[in-house]
Amino acid sequence: MEALLVVSVRRACPLTPRKKGRTYTGGSPDEAFPVKKRSLPLSRVYGLLEPGPVVLITTLRRGRANVMTQSWHTMMEFEPPLVGCVVSDENHSFEALRATRECVINIPAADLARQTVGCGNTTGARVDKFARFGLTPVPASMVAPPLIAECFASLEARVVDTRLVNRYGFFVLEVVKAWIDPTAKEPRTLHHRGHGRFMVAGETIRLPSRMK
Amino acid sequence: MEALLVVSVRRACPLTPRKKGRTYTGGSPDEAFPVKKRSLPLSRVYGLLEPGPVVLITTLRRGRANVMTQSWHTMMEFEPPLVGCVVSDENHSFEALRATRECVINIPAADLARQTVGCGNTTGARVDKFARFGLTPVPASMVAPPLIAECFASLEARVVDTRLVNRYGFFVLEVVKAWIDPTAKEPRTLHHRGHGRFMVAGETIRLPSRMK
Repeated sequence: MEALLVVSVRRACPLTPRKKGRTYTGGSPDEAFPVKKRSLPLSRVYGLLEPGPVVLITTLRRGRANVMTQSWHTMMEFEPPLVGCVVSDENHSFEALRATRECVINIPAADLARQTVGCGNTTGARVDKFARFGLTPVPASMVAPPLIAECFASLEARVVDTRLVNRYGFFVLEVVKAWIDPTAKEPRTLHHRGHGRFMVAGETIRLPSRMK
Repeated sequence: MEALLVVSVRRACPLTPRKKGRTYTGGSPDEAFPVKKRSLPLSRVYGLLEPGPVVLITTLRRGRANVMTQSWHTMMEFEPPLVGCVVSDENHSFEALRATRECVINIPAADLARQTVGCGNTTGARVDKFARFGLTPVPASMVAPPLIAECFASLEARVVDTRLVNRYGFFVLEVVKAWIDPTAKEPRTLHHRGHGRFMVAGETIRLPSRMK
């Protein structure tokens, strides 16, 4: 059974802050065109995160949604998909993730490179990153934080293990629902090499692998 | 201070097993041409692993070196570099890593795609993967398992936290020494998308990032 999520994607308008408050109300934006995102079977989530893309993690606390740019994550189990990720306690998202135990892992392609870096250069303590970077929050189905409409995939997740949080900021997340733009066949994901250098996903090759 | 490691790289001869035993003696191979690997400052290790390359993890137990193909890893700290990685207890390398608490994380580029997949398709319980795939073991400087000469980077590592091993096979490693081929500027690393599909690293773009 495949669910269908019809979201509205606002045209990119990164540097023109929208005149709206900081409270995430789950409303649908105007000036929009429709994009269909489909439910992705949980067994296929690992293929999205294994290649190491930069992700945008959304959280929600006290009515305020935030976005964090993040590269320190790894798959830990195929199904249900478990994802380990490091969120430093210096990040504004740390307290939201620890307190609410929910987030969405959104995967941008290279067309969102400027917004992705912008979210990494700013702090949610002072900036409404959705407004600043023209990102569109879309209500998730199983968690409170919003999906980012402009990302080609979004993984709704809950924290399931915090044993390594105090020492390393390492959260174990379980993906409970996954969404993907079915037209994104070989997305040009971003891969951080450090200090502003990002490798953009190149060609895909096939080899006779027995690995899952 | 920059150390220099001169290793000998055997010409690739993947499908012709060498006539040698399974015991790793640290000897240097013949039929070789020299390649210089340089010491890489530990503060720069994260830039190698953050983009999510497939890696070849070497272990050594009871005189036998083994190689495991692996994609489930993440940086956890800049310096000293901490790396979290998942090794399933179904892998032959699991017991070696748990018992010896040492490994080397070797990073292959696309020219080693066939050998990388080959190591993933076979088990060290029955196969000497160095011999089978024409990989050259080179003595490491601070740990017992060998480096792989053909890989453009090799990170000597020790296990520092096993709290999540029983539940997830998740080891926290500290990189204690890093080696890199200084000619590998923008290596065409492999990034697993699942079921034999590998994305090969594409172009690098630069953006004004404040992220480390």
